[in-house]
Amino acid sequence: MRNTMSLFTLARSLVLGTLIVLGAPAQAQTDPLPSWNDGAAKKAIIEFVQTTTTQGSPKFVPPAERIATFDQDGTLWVEHPMYSQVMYCLERVPTLAKAKPELAKVEPFKTVLSGNLEAIAKLSLKDLENILAATLTGMSVDEFNAEVKKWVAEAKDPRWKRPYTELTYLPMQEVLKYLRANGYNTYIVTGGGQDFVRVYSEQTYGIPPEQVVGTAGGTKYGYGKDGKPFLTKEPKLLLNDNNAGKPEGIHLMIGRRPHPPYCLT
Amino acid sequence: MRNTMSLFTLARSLVLGTLIVLGAPAQAQTDPLPSWNDGAAKKAIIEFVQTTTTQGSPKFVPPAERIATFDQDGTLWVEHPMYSQVMYCLERVPTLAKAKPELAKVEPFKTVLSGNLEAIAKLSLKDLENILAATLTGMSVDEFNAEVKKWVAEAKDPRWKRPYTELTYLPMQEVLKYLRANGYNTYIVTGGGQDFVRVYSEQTYGIPPEQVVGTAGGTKYGYGKDGKPFLTKEPKLLLNDNNAGKPEGIHLMIGRRPHPPYCLT
Repeated sequence: MRNTMSLFTLARSLVLGTLIVLGAPAQAQTDPLPSWNDGAAKKAIIEFVQTTTTQGSPKFVPPAERIATFDQDGTLWVEHPMYSQVMYCLERVPTLAKAKPELAKVEPFKTVLSGNLEAIAKLSLKDLENILAATLTGMSVDEFNAEVKKWVAEAKDPRWKRPYTELTYLPMQEVLKYLRANGYNTYIVTGGGQDFVRVYSEQTYGIPPEQVVGTAGGTKYGYGKDGKPFLTKEPKLLLNDNNAGKPEGIHLMIGRRPHPPYCLT
Repeated sequence: MRNTMSLFTLARSLVLGTLIVLGAPAQAQTDPLPSWNDGAAKKAIIEFVQTTTTQGSPKFVPPAERIATFDQDGTLWVEHPMYSQVMYCLERVPTLAKAKPELAKVEPFKTVLSGNLEAIAKLSLKDLENILAATLTGMSVDEFNAEVKKWVAEAKDPRWKRPYTELTYLPMQEVLKYLRANGYNTYIVTGGGQDFVRVYSEQTYGIPPEQVVGTAGGTKYGYGKDGKPFLTKEPKLLLNDNNAGKPEGIHLMIGRRPHPPYCLT
């Protein structure tokens, strides 16, 4: 499990002092991270929060500048044996093949429909990209959101037999809440699809859609037969939010530079 | 002047009821829009805020869903006789030519350096694009931010002899504050450069960088000679935040669909 957390502290003048004053007494009385072992990691997190939120501390950060970003896969929820979003894409293939029967005859869709897990596991990166493009683009944003919402409510992890959104890490959920209770805005910065994660982020982590940065494609504005406007998800990659794409995505979506001393990795 | 304001009200569960309770009495006693004429526009804005923030109203919007977006040029600040950002780009050309003397010999930079306003006004769109690419990309994000900050502090509008950031519309500043006092998050969604506007948006409008959506280019992550990471602004357009690009940008950066009944245009 990778715990990646960065704090952004560029110049902003607004100070919401009341938030801290109200938050402090409650924090002092209870353990904010009850599921963590008493060790160096827990100590570092608590010290980080205390030194950045105590007025007069040399590391004090005004509330309006408090932004903490978290990776998702393997950090906030499970990523094995496969990224949950890849499960979504694979499980969408039968529906896709019903609408477009010609897909059932061509690779890599034929292999996915065979249900042969060994063969599926051997699909190439290019094959996976084709599956992702076919299942994540070409529909309206509203259709996509509805499909993901339905899947999230119904799909279950094959091993744990629980919805994927219940397979989050309790210690990290505690860190998210602890930070928010101390005036931090919590963001997800994930290699996963931005639109995908935004569907369940609020309910699952308390993180609203506008605080989710992820791999993002372009959309195209147009009008339906009813004259109402809608956006279509295009197979055009705007941001690959992996590796170097993460700081690039943070710049694009948040526009602040991380404060170097406050990176806990 | 175009007053474009949209409200985003997709499903979110968090209700920050205290904000409303605390905010209401103050609003009731004073005119929130003192510089507006008493007319249909002012009435519509006040009714909009009252009906969306009054518990029990059929149009009530929970505070966490309250997002209002504003265009910038011609809405929040002046756009004539030229977009202020184009002034920045033109005024950067002499400095650029000092660093790269060969530029002074080629068009369109030769014309800009001539100071011949009539000839400058006749530059083609392609010429302008070349000037924008040369002055807005190729440097680090930090260098760019520092240059814009300096320009914003020093440059003056030729007609009004005042810094551009003082040439904002007071009635719209009042609307921004009025909405924020009622639990709205105010966003800028502009055709102007996202990185450019973010430099002064907090100080000028009280809008933090993460709430500025604009025309955005890619960046590239790399390391300096000192081993420290930095981002370079690349001449690669990710989002043209004009016309259809505005709803596309809202989807990319905010991820919520505007609530159709609440568009004031």
